[in-house]
Amino acid sequence: MRGKHKDFVIIEGYVLLVLAAAMIIPLIMAIVLKESSSVYGFGWTVAICAGAGASIVVLMKPSPEKFKSRDGFFVVSLTWLVASIAGAMPFWISGAMPNLADAIFESASGFSTTGSSILTDIEIMPKSILFWRSFTHWLGGMGIIVFVMAILPAIGISGQLVAYAETPGPVKDKVTARFTDTAKGLYALYIGMTLIQAVLLRLGKMSWYDAFIHTFGTVGTGGFSNYNTSIAHFDSVYIELVIIVFMVLSGINFNLYYVAINQGRGLKTVFRDDETRFYLTVMGTAAALIFGYNIIFNGFTNIGGEFMDAIFHVASITTTTGYGSGDYDLWPTFSKMVLFALFFFGGCSGSTGGGIKHIRMLVALKLLRRSFSLKMHPKRIIPVRVNGADLSSDVVIKITNFLFMYIATLFAGIMLIGLDGMDFMSTVSAAATCLGNIGPGFNLVGPTMNFALLSDFAKYVCSFLMIAGRLELYTVFTLFTRYYWNSNKA
Amino acid sequence: MRGKHKDFVIIEGYVLLVLAAAMIIPLIMAIVLKESSSVYGFGWTVAICAGAGASIVVLMKPSPEKFKSRDGFFVVSLTWLVASIAGAMPFWISGAMPNLADAIFESASGFSTTGSSILTDIEIMPKSILFWRSFTHWLGGMGIIVFVMAILPAIGISGQLVAYAETPGPVKDKVTARFTDTAKGLYALYIGMTLIQAVLLRLGKMSWYDAFIHTFGTVGTGGFSNYNTSIAHFDSVYIELVIIVFMVLSGINFNLYYVAINQGRGLKTVFRDDETRFYLTVMGTAAALIFGYNIIFNGFTNIGGEFMDAIFHVASITTTTGYGSGDYDLWPTFSKMVLFALFFFGGCSGSTGGGIKHIRMLVALKLLRRSFSLKMHPKRIIPVRVNGADLSSDVVIKITNFLFMYIATLFAGIMLIGLDGMDFMSTVSAAATCLGNIGPGFNLVGPTMNFALLSDFAKYVCSFLMIAGRLELYTVFTLFTRYYWNSNKA
Repeated sequence: MRGKHKDFVIIEGYVLLVLAAAMIIPLIMAIVLKESSSVYGFGWTVAICAGAGASIVVLMKPSPEKFKSRDGFFVVSLTWLVASIAGAMPFWISGAMPNLADAIFESASGFSTTGSSILTDIEIMPKSILFWRSFTHWLGGMGIIVFVMAILPAIGISGQLVAYAETPGPVKDKVTARFTDTAKGLYALYIGMTLIQAVLLRLGKMSWYDAFIHTFGTVGTGGFSNYNTSIAHFDSVYIELVIIVFMVLSGINFNLYYVAINQGRGLKTVFRDDETRFYLTVMGTAAALIFGYNIIFNGFTNIGGEFMDAIFHVASITTTTGYGSGDYDLWPTFSKMVLFALFFFGGCSGSTGGGIKHIRMLVALKLLRRSFSLKMHPKRIIPVRVNGADLSSDVVIKITNFLFMYIATLFAGIMLIGLDGMDFMSTVSAAATCLGNIGPGFNLVGPTMNFALLSDFAKYVCSFLMIAGRLELYTVFTLFTRYYWNSNKA
Repeated sequence: MRGKHKDFVIIEGYVLLVLAAAMIIPLIMAIVLKESSSVYGFGWTVAICAGAGASIVVLMKPSPEKFKSRDGFFVVSLTWLVASIAGAMPFWISGAMPNLADAIFESASGFSTTGSSILTDIEIMPKSILFWRSFTHWLGGMGIIVFVMAILPAIGISGQLVAYAETPGPVKDKVTARFTDTAKGLYALYIGMTLIQAVLLRLGKMSWYDAFIHTFGTVGTGGFSNYNTSIAHFDSVYIELVIIVFMVLSGINFNLYYVAINQGRGLKTVFRDDETRFYLTVMGTAAALIFGYNIIFNGFTNIGGEFMDAIFHVASITTTTGYGSGDYDLWPTFSKMVLFALFFFGGCSGSTGGGIKHIRMLVALKLLRRSFSLKMHPKRIIPVRVNGADLSSDVVIKITNFLFMYIATLFAGIMLIGLDGMDFMSTVSAAATCLGNIGPGFNLVGPTMNFALLSDFAKYVCSFLMIAGRLELYTVFTLFTRYYWNSNKA
């Protein structure tokens, strides 16, 4: 092994060390709570990860070769594969999830902040296992490699390349300069948000344990809960409100917060952004439609409850969190269709939310509007403007390519999950919720159900969709093309 | 009223005259068969259409103003509205469909060659009514205005503008020169195909009446039958084969046939075309997947029957005909998903088939392939080639715009039909089958079901989707934008 291949391995060594360090928290928790199978699971995993990671880092010397953009695709994809497997080990070794496909699914769902689960009864699980499961949301939310770079700056891989391959959204110029500083700043912000939400939830009479579990699920826009009925378990309007606010905040571009705080420009930077405004408009419209229709349909029975339910689920699905405050599968068809449409918006670029991202949908809508004036004036050149500036045709082409690729991947996922023979809505929504990193779907994979009944094959397909969706498709898919391997030879 | 507005009305006068002439066939049929309510229905409609049409044509004088492309959008949209309403009159006046929304739905479904029906028992209908219902497929297949121009060349509107607004497909240069000659040539071909298929079906022991009904449904890629169980009624492999062959032939670009015959270049012109090859490849692949999976799933019980069923329904859905030789709703989920994916391919451009059209999907796939090499070489300019020539970026943008608009329209349709509260698959497939001019959907609107249970509102939404889909969206939608009305003022 030589050159850059050695560097790839060294980076994974650091990734393993960081994961081992992260697992020490649930390991201590397992020891204190005397959860013997979990002590076994975390103990072995920490030992293997730390041992392998340390050996690699100590024994191998980095090469002086410079990384190229295609190396970014490879390193980031490899990291997410390594993390999903390492993260699954405690579940599997402890016997909490004796089926390997289940453990991998749960870990991929955690890191990718999807929040779909194969657990049929969450509440019988050891506390340390549930803590780790939710902690993967927090680690994956801002990006695993970004996290590694924020705490270990001297890896030798350019932050720009990682950001390009791991950070969501079509335009990434804001995070390029002095990347490790930015990464640290973003993490400081993320930790700050985490602490504030945990305290607010604690004030709502949650235990500290529950507060952190649900904070990880919220700020990472993941959606894992330690209760079978998710947020409905607490039956508290205050808790629902706190979670709504933090879901919405976590779905906004963190770089905007960074700029607002670091350059002292205040919150108007955040709310003057076209993507933020579109994001809030979409959620507001959807919540109004659902609330209005449900109220008419349900005959004005419980206006306050319907209102909270509509807002909560709209925020939960749009931000791709996936927490539930009730069962939206009981809603009338129209409201379910509105919610299903939100499956295809996602968070904002640079947020912890998954999916297509609002900026891409905004550009698609602007392209639609432009198409009418092109019909009338075929020769006119009409730019697409975002935040007052014309988008280059490069960016527009990238966005349309992404949208086509998303649809193609969705259809491929539907076909493969279709082999399981579930009904149409379960099949389609399973593929859409995994690819969009949302969590629950409809019917058999609905908000009160889980993914346990899927075949192992379908679970691996879902795991792949979750990771490919989190890395916005191209980072993963490029590795399967001859374009990647040909240009690698050159 | 002055200028071009007068011309618009004069054109509709001719349209009414042609429709009145076309209705004389079912009127005579009704008289001969002593179907008194139908005599009443067709008699009144012919009288009204002929009277109104003749008055307009005789009393109004055309203006010397030249038509522009936006006038093409208006005239064609208006014609399809007028035809759908006039075509519905016999159904309504005769009492065969006493609900106006039903009559309009059936007429729009006929002219747009969709083939969705609101009839729960087709076989109790008068023969003249069923004849007219199927005849609208034949008239709509090649385009109503194209038909009017082929028989009445002196209307005064440029054929190019009509072809632009009424002929399906993104590239229309082949039909521009000497348009009325081309229109006559295309109709000669269409009539030839019609007669050959009718004779072949007659040889399969169909009555002449049944043979023509099913020929109209096939060559127009419509799908109306006069039997409740569609083609399964005949229980004949020969008839199924004839219909499969003519469905597939009708889904190919008629301009290719025209060039092959008129310029003596032979059938290789047809089969060397990239779109034709892609169309045949898609159908072959889908049929192989469905046949293979159904055989494995059904345990090798009836290989011949499964084979015919797979081929028949793949051809029926892909060409957007919608005939049934069985109930594909009983297929396993995977096979239904493959069939559902075919809902989004449609016929070829310039065929009588509806939907997105294969050329657009081919270009979308080529764009996807190109997107990978763009990831590796962001600065390289890589053209998209079809039939050996580079597509201009104009055409590529038009195609991506169309695809986005199709998805947006589909979602809007799903929302509006969702107000009816049917299940997910019925709602989604109802919108998709109407927009794609296919005919049957799944579940409540599946191949053995019909659209009778929809609300009047949903029936009007479906009628709109059928016409908008047949006219490839922009012809209709442009009229609802300020771009159209602003440039009309100028």
